[in-house]
Amino acid sequence: MLKQIVVTTRQQGLHEVTQEIEAAVRSAGLREGLCTLFLRHTSASLLIQENADPSARRDLERWLNRLVPEDDPLYTHRTEGPDDMPAHIKSALTAVTLSIPINDGRLVLGTWQGVYLWEHRHCGGRREVVIHIAA
Amino acid sequence: MLKQIVVTTRQQGLHEVTQEIEAAVRSAGLREGLCTLFLRHTSASLLIQENADPSARRDLERWLNRLVPEDDPLYTHRTEGPDDMPAHIKSALTAVTLSIPINDGRLVLGTWQGVYLWEHRHCGGRREVVIHIAA
Amino acid sequence: MLKQIVVTTRQQGLHEVTQEIEAAVRSAGLREGLCTLFLRHTSASLLIQENADPSARRDLERWLNRLVPEDDPLYTHRTEGPDDMPAHIKSALTAVTLSIPINDGRLVLGTWQGVYLWEHRHCGGRREVVIHIAA
Repeated sequence: MLKQIVVTTRQQGLHEVTQEIEAAVRSAGLREGLCTLFLRHTSASLLIQENADPSARRDLERWLNRLVPEDDPLYTHRTEGPDDMPAHIKSALTAVTLSIPINDGRLVLGTWQGVYLWEHRHCGGRREVVIHIAA
Repeated sequence: MLKQIVVTTRQQGLHEVTQEIEAAVRSAGLREGLCTLFLRHTSASLLIQENADPSARRDLERWLNRLVPEDDPLYTHRTEGPDDMPAHIKSALTAVTLSIPINDGRLVLGTWQGVYLWEHRHCGGRREVVIHIAA
Repeated sequence: MLKQIVVTTRQQGLHEVTQEIEAAVRSAGLREGLCTLFLRHTSASLLIQENADPSARRDLERWLNRLVPEDDPLYTHRTEGPDDMPAHIKSALTAVTLSIPINDGRLVLGTWQGVYLWEHRHCGGRREVVIHIAA
């Protein structure tokens, strides 16, 4: 079973999508199975990360922005703006697909795990996540 | 089919779980299929890495510890100890889900590939890996 | 259904395999499903990245080569050559498995997404990618 969610991002950072994914899983009506997420973009990521303290997510973003800064003279790919090449690198260092088992009709996420779309552009816009659910 | 293994970690580093995963695959009794691993934690990772020379795994750990040190003044998330924020960052840079095909009743790992739980905390404790196996 | 493709790499860098994967998906004859790729090596990666402007892929390679250089005195694992330990680290920082949903008999890749085998050795040689396709 295939579904799709759309996340509209207007700034860099982690946008939580746990509720949308859980809703798709519920509507599939499977007690056990596997939910696979696929992001159709190369300048954003899918991430499972701490959902409790927002300071952890902020530090994560700040750390990655320092590792992959916008003003790096190494970049030759600049036509789409200074945040484009860093976004591709960040996407390569993280994930664009995630597979999460389903048990009792719910994702088997740990207590402190949330699912996030990590936008790496300043104005990402419409981001599509395809969801595949099967037994 | 869902299974779970628990790995108790008492120090940072790579804990091999290849045998436990292969045992779960054997007990599923499928000749062909897909085995998906999911780690229910945000301060550890799942990793496929060289299983031959331990020096490769030690260098990998030392390299990542240097890239993501504990004493970085960037961190504001400090309440859970100096190894907590680095652990979240390391988890984001690596994988928490892996999907490995099954052929002839075994994982199709390459000759030099082992499956590891990579603990990023000094005292990780009980780590749960959910295993989904399907044709 | 399991298939395998072999990519022979003679230099570092991104080798596009989108067409080979799409051909495997077509031959499976499924309208909807999931295609999972698994790389049987620990010194290369699988990557979904921009397929339009080659400068983005070149910058990505150069950036990772700078982050993980060959002449790092940290390495003790040196028996297989100066490019071996960096290759293991690069592999750990990226992906060796990818899962891509299938819709209308094709991968649901975004307009600008291609699938690449990223060789991290100077002479990688024969690289095997196992493809699992299921509904």
